[in-house]
Amino acid sequence: MRWPKGLAGLCFGGDWNPEQWPEPVWRQDVALMRQAGVNLVSVGVFAWSWLEPEPGRYTFGWLDRALDLLHEAGIRANLATPTASPPPWFSLAHPDALPVTASGVRLSHGSRDTYCAAAPAYRAAARRIAAALAHRYAGHPALAMWHVHNEYGTRCHCDHVAAAFRHWLRGRYRNLAGLNAAWGTAFWSQHYSGWEQVLPPRATQYRPNPHQALDFRRFWSDQLLVAFREQARLLREATPDVPVTTNFAFGDWVPIDHRRWAGELDLVAVDSYPAGSGIEAEQQAAFLADLARHWAGGRPWLLLEQAPGTLADRGAQVATAPGRMARLTLTHLARGSRGGMFFQWRASAAGAEQFHAGLVPHAGPDSRIFAEARELGRLLPRLAEVDPGGVAAEVAIGWDAPSWWALQQPHLPSDRLDFLAGVRRAHRALWEVQVTADFADLAADLSGYRLVLVPGHYLATDRVAGAVRRYVTGGGHLLVWYLSGVADESGRIRLGGYPGAFRELLGVLVTEFQPLPPEATVPLRDGGHGRLWSEQVRLAGAEPVRWYAGGGLAGQPAVTRHRYRGGGNGRGNGGGLAWYVSTELDRDTYRAVVGAALAAAGVATGGLPPGVDLVRRRAGGQSWTFALNHTGDPVRVPARGVDLVSGARIDEAVRLAPGAVAVVRGAG
Amino acid sequence: MRWPKGLAGLCFGGDWNPEQWPEPVWRQDVALMRQAGVNLVSVGVFAWSWLEPEPGRYTFGWLDRALDLLHEAGIRANLATPTASPPPWFSLAHPDALPVTASGVRLSHGSRDTYCAAAPAYRAAARRIAAALAHRYAGHPALAMWHVHNEYGTRCHCDHVAAAFRHWLRGRYRNLAGLNAAWGTAFWSQHYSGWEQVLPPRATQYRPNPHQALDFRRFWSDQLLVAFREQARLLREATPDVPVTTNFAFGDWVPIDHRRWAGELDLVAVDSYPAGSGIEAEQQAAFLADLARHWAGGRPWLLLEQAPGTLADRGAQVATAPGRMARLTLTHLARGSRGGMFFQWRASAAGAEQFHAGLVPHAGPDSRIFAEARELGRLLPRLAEVDPGGVAAEVAIGWDAPSWWALQQPHLPSDRLDFLAGVRRAHRALWEVQVTADFADLAADLSGYRLVLVPGHYLATDRVAGAVRRYVTGGGHLLVWYLSGVADESGRIRLGGYPGAFRELLGVLVTEFQPLPPEATVPLRDGGHGRLWSEQVRLAGAEPVRWYAGGGLAGQPAVTRHRYRGGGNGRGNGGGLAWYVSTELDRDTYRAVVGAALAAAGVATGGLPPGVDLVRRRAGGQSWTFALNHTGDPVRVPARGVDLVSGARIDEAVRLAPGAVAVVRGAG
Amino acid sequence: MRWPKGLAGLCFGGDWNPEQWPEPVWRQDVALMRQAGVNLVSVGVFAWSWLEPEPGRYTFGWLDRALDLLHEAGIRANLATPTASPPPWFSLAHPDALPVTASGVRLSHGSRDTYCAAAPAYRAAARRIAAALAHRYAGHPALAMWHVHNEYGTRCHCDHVAAAFRHWLRGRYRNLAGLNAAWGTAFWSQHYSGWEQVLPPRATQYRPNPHQALDFRRFWSDQLLVAFREQARLLREATPDVPVTTNFAFGDWVPIDHRRWAGELDLVAVDSYPAGSGIEAEQQAAFLADLARHWAGGRPWLLLEQAPGTLADRGAQVATAPGRMARLTLTHLARGSRGGMFFQWRASAAGAEQFHAGLVPHAGPDSRIFAEARELGRLLPRLAEVDPGGVAAEVAIGWDAPSWWALQQPHLPSDRLDFLAGVRRAHRALWEVQVTADFADLAADLSGYRLVLVPGHYLATDRVAGAVRRYVTGGGHLLVWYLSGVADESGRIRLGGYPGAFRELLGVLVTEFQPLPPEATVPLRDGGHGRLWSEQVRLAGAEPVRWYAGGGLAGQPAVTRHRYRGGGNGRGNGGGLAWYVSTELDRDTYRAVVGAALAAAGVATGGLPPGVDLVRRRAGGQSWTFALNHTGDPVRVPARGVDLVSGARIDEAVRLAPGAVAVVRGAG
Repeated sequence: MRWPKGLAGLCFGGDWNPEQWPEPVWRQDVALMRQAGVNLVSVGVFAWSWLEPEPGRYTFGWLDRALDLLHEAGIRANLATPTASPPPWFSLAHPDALPVTASGVRLSHGSRDTYCAAAPAYRAAARRIAAALAHRYAGHPALAMWHVHNEYGTRCHCDHVAAAFRHWLRGRYRNLAGLNAAWGTAFWSQHYSGWEQVLPPRATQYRPNPHQALDFRRFWSDQLLVAFREQARLLREATPDVPVTTNFAFGDWVPIDHRRWAGELDLVAVDSYPAGSGIEAEQQAAFLADLARHWAGGRPWLLLEQAPGTLADRGAQVATAPGRMARLTLTHLARGSRGGMFFQWRASAAGAEQFHAGLVPHAGPDSRIFAEARELGRLLPRLAEVDPGGVAAEVAIGWDAPSWWALQQPHLPSDRLDFLAGVRRAHRALWEVQVTADFADLAADLSGYRLVLVPGHYLATDRVAGAVRRYVTGGGHLLVWYLSGVADESGRIRLGGYPGAFRELLGVLVTEFQPLPPEATVPLRDGGHGRLWSEQVRLAGAEPVRWYAGGGLAGQPAVTRHRYRGGGNGRGNGGGLAWYVSTELDRDTYRAVVGAALAAAGVATGGLPPGVDLVRRRAGGQSWTFALNHTGDPVRVPARGVDLVSGARIDEAVRLAPGAVAVVRGAG
Repeated sequence: MRWPKGLAGLCFGGDWNPEQWPEPVWRQDVALMRQAGVNLVSVGVFAWSWLEPEPGRYTFGWLDRALDLLHEAGIRANLATPTASPPPWFSLAHPDALPVTASGVRLSHGSRDTYCAAAPAYRAAARRIAAALAHRYAGHPALAMWHVHNEYGTRCHCDHVAAAFRHWLRGRYRNLAGLNAAWGTAFWSQHYSGWEQVLPPRATQYRPNPHQALDFRRFWSDQLLVAFREQARLLREATPDVPVTTNFAFGDWVPIDHRRWAGELDLVAVDSYPAGSGIEAEQQAAFLADLARHWAGGRPWLLLEQAPGTLADRGAQVATAPGRMARLTLTHLARGSRGGMFFQWRASAAGAEQFHAGLVPHAGPDSRIFAEARELGRLLPRLAEVDPGGVAAEVAIGWDAPSWWALQQPHLPSDRLDFLAGVRRAHRALWEVQVTADFADLAADLSGYRLVLVPGHYLATDRVAGAVRRYVTGGGHLLVWYLSGVADESGRIRLGGYPGAFRELLGVLVTEFQPLPPEATVPLRDGGHGRLWSEQVRLAGAEPVRWYAGGGLAGQPAVTRHRYRGGGNGRGNGGGLAWYVSTELDRDTYRAVVGAALAAAGVATGGLPPGVDLVRRRAGGQSWTFALNHTGDPVRVPARGVDLVSGARIDEAVRLAPGAVAVVRGAG
Repeated sequence: MRWPKGLAGLCFGGDWNPEQWPEPVWRQDVALMRQAGVNLVSVGVFAWSWLEPEPGRYTFGWLDRALDLLHEAGIRANLATPTASPPPWFSLAHPDALPVTASGVRLSHGSRDTYCAAAPAYRAAARRIAAALAHRYAGHPALAMWHVHNEYGTRCHCDHVAAAFRHWLRGRYRNLAGLNAAWGTAFWSQHYSGWEQVLPPRATQYRPNPHQALDFRRFWSDQLLVAFREQARLLREATPDVPVTTNFAFGDWVPIDHRRWAGELDLVAVDSYPAGSGIEAEQQAAFLADLARHWAGGRPWLLLEQAPGTLADRGAQVATAPGRMARLTLTHLARGSRGGMFFQWRASAAGAEQFHAGLVPHAGPDSRIFAEARELGRLLPRLAEVDPGGVAAEVAIGWDAPSWWALQQPHLPSDRLDFLAGVRRAHRALWEVQVTADFADLAADLSGYRLVLVPGHYLATDRVAGAVRRYVTGGGHLLVWYLSGVADESGRIRLGGYPGAFRELLGVLVTEFQPLPPEATVPLRDGGHGRLWSEQVRLAGAEPVRWYAGGGLAGQPAVTRHRYRGGGNGRGNGGGLAWYVSTELDRDTYRAVVGAALAAAGVATGGLPPGVDLVRRRAGGQSWTFALNHTGDPVRVPARGVDLVSGARIDEAVRLAPGAVAVVRGAG
């Protein structure tokens, strides 16, 4: 991680779009920023057509003036390359660079992201504007960081893409035999006898090839990374000392393997748009923040966008309660963010996001939102000392973007499978008992954890299988859910019984998936039930912990536990426990099973009500305990030290009113 | 308004399509029409391929004979230009004149409206057939009126349209700077540097530009009007004395600003297809009829299509109860229609609407529907005397088609906003208490009204703001709902606090929209609740009338009232009351608020149960009171005079059985 | 019907796809097949790209070896032509042979069925590979049968199709006048003045022409038959003694009139994929099996595909209970199937159906599914003696694929009409009382039946009307549901009152359809109710049996009965009873009406609980009674003879535990 020189403390600010406003408003903006304590703003994210109104004619004057204004006010710029939205003249001149859907519809200008990232003309134009910006602003004193593009994630299915996809596939498989094997082309007569026959997944008569669809997502992750790399190289050449980042978007539609990208960024930055009413929004924010820390390799990262004062809930932009904006920001800080940035600074008067929230709303600064922004701006400097603190976790959750993508395919035994829901559920179960979770790549060294949760890790390479085996052999505990380890990296089934890659380790052999129809449940012997999924589990070393109690599986194991010693070089009792869950458990049983696994692994829980978030950052013999009360009841959190929020000395415990927060500096 | 010469009394009849039947059936038709008292039929609406089976070869013989038959029977023809459905040969010869969807799908022949109204080939062919008909039938004695086209409303996104749209935009904005400002192209890098870059809204990667989408609807309204005007000019040249009309369609898909069109029609005519079971169909019919009167500038108009004996209800063509067909017709007559016409005369044996109802059903004239048609035919002549009567209203509802279109965009703070539902709700609240409502253009002189209701008037020009201010200053009362006056004519937010254009007048300042998620409600202090929407309302002169009682807004105003004196030249107490409603009220609270506004404005209600429709037409010192009992209970309506329906003398009141109607001629 | 020489007994096996597996697995497969008693496998259904990896280069070696292996093990091959999935090289070389949707999207390679069956290049390639296979394997001793293509049913809307559709239409209508009349082109100006104007139904602005859509389905049935015939001719030339079949698919999307196809097949074979939880899956299987017998003209047929051990239920592949796989197979055997075949033998490791069930699942042969397969393989030889037995039925249900298609159009009086649901309901009512049903073409001689049920037979030719009249005149009983006989063969309404074709016979005249909105019901006098539909029924000879008791139809007939003597040459009492049902009856009333019709017709019911399936096959003075207990309770079925399943002698009755089956051989 590299950090902007001269940018001290935690970042606070948002996207500032001066091109949308007359210059008198700029001056008002900068004055308000100073009032609010803003120290960093993202500038120029969608300014291409304002910077280059005609091919090769640049109008940098306004941006010069805007950056000068910032610099005079001591505010730093996270200066964007505007390549996520080419100008209309570009689309008109290069129709072959417009994106094409799987059905062959060539999309039109009029929104954003109107380009195919594999189109040579687009890539050349993107390099040109990035180079021009780098050249112009390399020496500008306001320049703190480069913000490349915006929310990479746009796909296309055109012939440029077909060529690039083939090129990528050749790199992956070397020859057609490899591709034919990986894609299972023996089925439905899809055997390729020439590379020119290979296409992106486009509209088909019936179900598409799932392996092709999976590789197409992988390809896009890599293809967009190539596009990013081209810009980053130009920027780094011009300004070797200025860090380069991009803002990661998160969602089903995003074909990015962020963990793989992170190595090429100087700083991982994320956009965080949790949704929903109630506490689930806080839990989603915590989830994404923990994920961002994983992407960043455990190092600090930056929350680059969030919506000030609103949350999307089933089609409505619902207002957050007073104070919640700060609490949501602290949810990220607790987990390693180097600040809290917002989209956007001032709410737009026009355009497709004219109703997106802004720190300065349409009504102006005399408003609740801006008042809360100012309060947050006063709070953050008091928290700046936590910045070096690392987040330590004893529990990890397996994360694998390709497994997510593989479980989005339409050919699975149930069409209601949801990788993300499974991972979120695991995270939530820990969050509710105040256990901080890392996310982890299962192929990495897991020995630092006491317990690893593995929900829906559908794909597993031999390397993953080996790493997990070594981890458990070494005494680590493991809790695996159904549909993990079922397929190899390409999505081909590991034969001989599920869950292929983890079968021996778990001491079970699943001979049959038995998904359940909507609304159906299968009772368990001890009172709970399963839904969505069930399996015929044969014991092969494991002992049953819960049993099915109805249907065709009555009396058979539903949850199992296996003391696995592997090669025998385990620590302690010679190996950890490997748990297996073969159905989607009801809430109480789920909690009980996770609780039992935590207890067996020796992980202490927080003992506070669900909805109280408790995270500790540590550095140099000191610790900072973030305690956030998202519940509607007062709560007492044991702690000792000084609360940086209130300034109060805490002897035994800090009392938090509903919605209140504390950050207690204590000893190590 | 111009009226066909020699067509006396109220119109009764329907669309007659002789081209679908052998000639012996024509003679039977005309005999049945005479039996039923039909005096006008629409002819040839979809007859193009029958009139011009090959380019330039006309086969008018059959139409000559059909019109002659009508004339012999004393029935007049509303003769159509058949341009809503070009023949197959046209589509084959002019593929560039086929319509194209936003996704680029070129639509095919095989239904109706298969043309792009901006395509030169289509427009030329439409002019040719219209001119040929005008030439042929200019002197035919049956010709009473010209029916141009059918239900204008078809859109297209092709390159002809792109060119026409650009031409229209140049007219509207003069230069690109104006367009760039109006469309907020500074957002998402959409700045246009050349006119050739501007396109219709087509399929995009993400959300479209809402200002572009709004202008595209406006463009289509004007573009279709140009197409209408071309035909109307030809017809008027040939027959200066024959009035020209078209049948207005109504619905979310229709990009027509009917009020703007009306000035170019000799007679406003509407198609009325209310939907649903129960009384809401009658209320919808009343709504559309009041709207038609608005479009017609308060003058008489004509109900040109309705379905005999059926109402669409969630996918089923539900039969109306006995007598309801006449009652629905009188709903329109009461509100100014010069008759009741139906689609269609005889139910088709084949084609895409072979199950659309007809006055003569598949079973033939020995049927309930035809019996009811005959009864209606006997009743209408007795009501003919009401024709000169104007409809007087003390209350108006603001109507603004562009606001409707603007609230159809996908970028709003809630995706459940519904302009039409809001306007209908206001209309219904008046209808239920027997208060006749006009619709009004808020930029016009409103001084004739005691109360004006303004639901969802999202866009407001400065002219509207001024006119409304003058109206209230002059003592008029005003009731405004949330999301009114928020944006300027282009859809750009009026900054400084909502509801921009009406803020000062209403004495409030809204700093924050707080939409609610589905199913959520916010309690009000006096027992009711709001849903869908709420706002942070700051008082700036107004006094609160209802308060929020829960959530983040607890204790804050939900409904307010402001005595506005403006420049001070008000009448009576020096200015009217301006009410503001910031949430979607529950039914009872809604009624109470409207009731309070009516009372404060001095508007008398009917005092009859909801579902009793009471409208008065007046002319020359006489009045005709339409009393329609849509309820399931008998009702007693105070009146004095003669009931034209029963012929009975009414001394004090007329008693109406469930479903019964009366039209009482009285003094004044 | 022709049967493979040397293939004795009932068929048992599945689709075997050796191309998906290394050769060592083939040998394991064949050993397992022998273990399980497999005697027939379908081979090569999707092997085109494996057999012809480049144009004209054939790689038959692997198939030679696979067939040799089968032959050595005494297993016969149902050898497929692989034309349902052309190789990628074909798609690349012939883009004009890719299918095109109604919206003009040209579909891409990457699934299956990626061809337009009207494209000359496709047809030529299909003939070439079929001829090559025929030439290569004509003399192979394993070859038992030819399996042409797979599940014919793919449509296309391209210009090749337009040409072929026109050609077909010329054959049907001779001239444009005929087509214009049949399609009702007088409506909406669709009159064709040249053949080149006629197109397939493609995306249109508004509703399509329903007659065109109906003919397009008919065209596809015939067009695909032409494609089948081309291949069949080549195969028969090479192997005159080897029967030729194809596997029929069944579903809304399938544009095949299977009854018309059957005459060109040596053996009717069907794929049976019932869906849903509970007993409805068994009922669906019985339904399809009875239908297959109809398609086969009453002769034996073959169940060629079913899923081993799973049923699709609302998006989930639900496991069948133990033993249900055999019971579902016997449901088909009871109704004339010559065996039970499965898709597929071994579950695929990869590809779009990698989770489709296999007799050998991913876990391998040590699994429940394979154990059940072995059991079934042991049972079937004991049942082989039933094979010559015919299935006799006293009751028939009218079946008419074009009526199905006509009721799929979007222009009907209710959008919830469902031909298939109506026919299934009639079948189920009989199945629940153990009455075996034939399906019948109403234009055929019906005199062998006591009762004929006619649900939703929307289209009726004069020939159908005449045949039904003769049947009833001859003493046959008839039970007709609403929307039957309403239209002629083209879908044009039969005027003068519904149900046109059957009006006189039923002694009723329906003057008005009165569909009901969703959830609405209309009460009947005797306690039940109707939903979905109702009608104004005027008696014209019939007597009422049930009456409407509410709404606009209160007091009017809902169900009627007519003693029809026709020309008077009836048998017995001089003519049968013709019942008419004008609404969708509630379950109990439906059963009561069918029960009354059965009783009046003298048809005996089984007297067992619903869910007990009882079918008798008979040959040469012997009978075999299939008794299948699908219920959860034990049941006692009267019978005498020997139970082939258990081997037990049955004196009076066989007792069946829940889920148990018996096949009792007895006298006559």
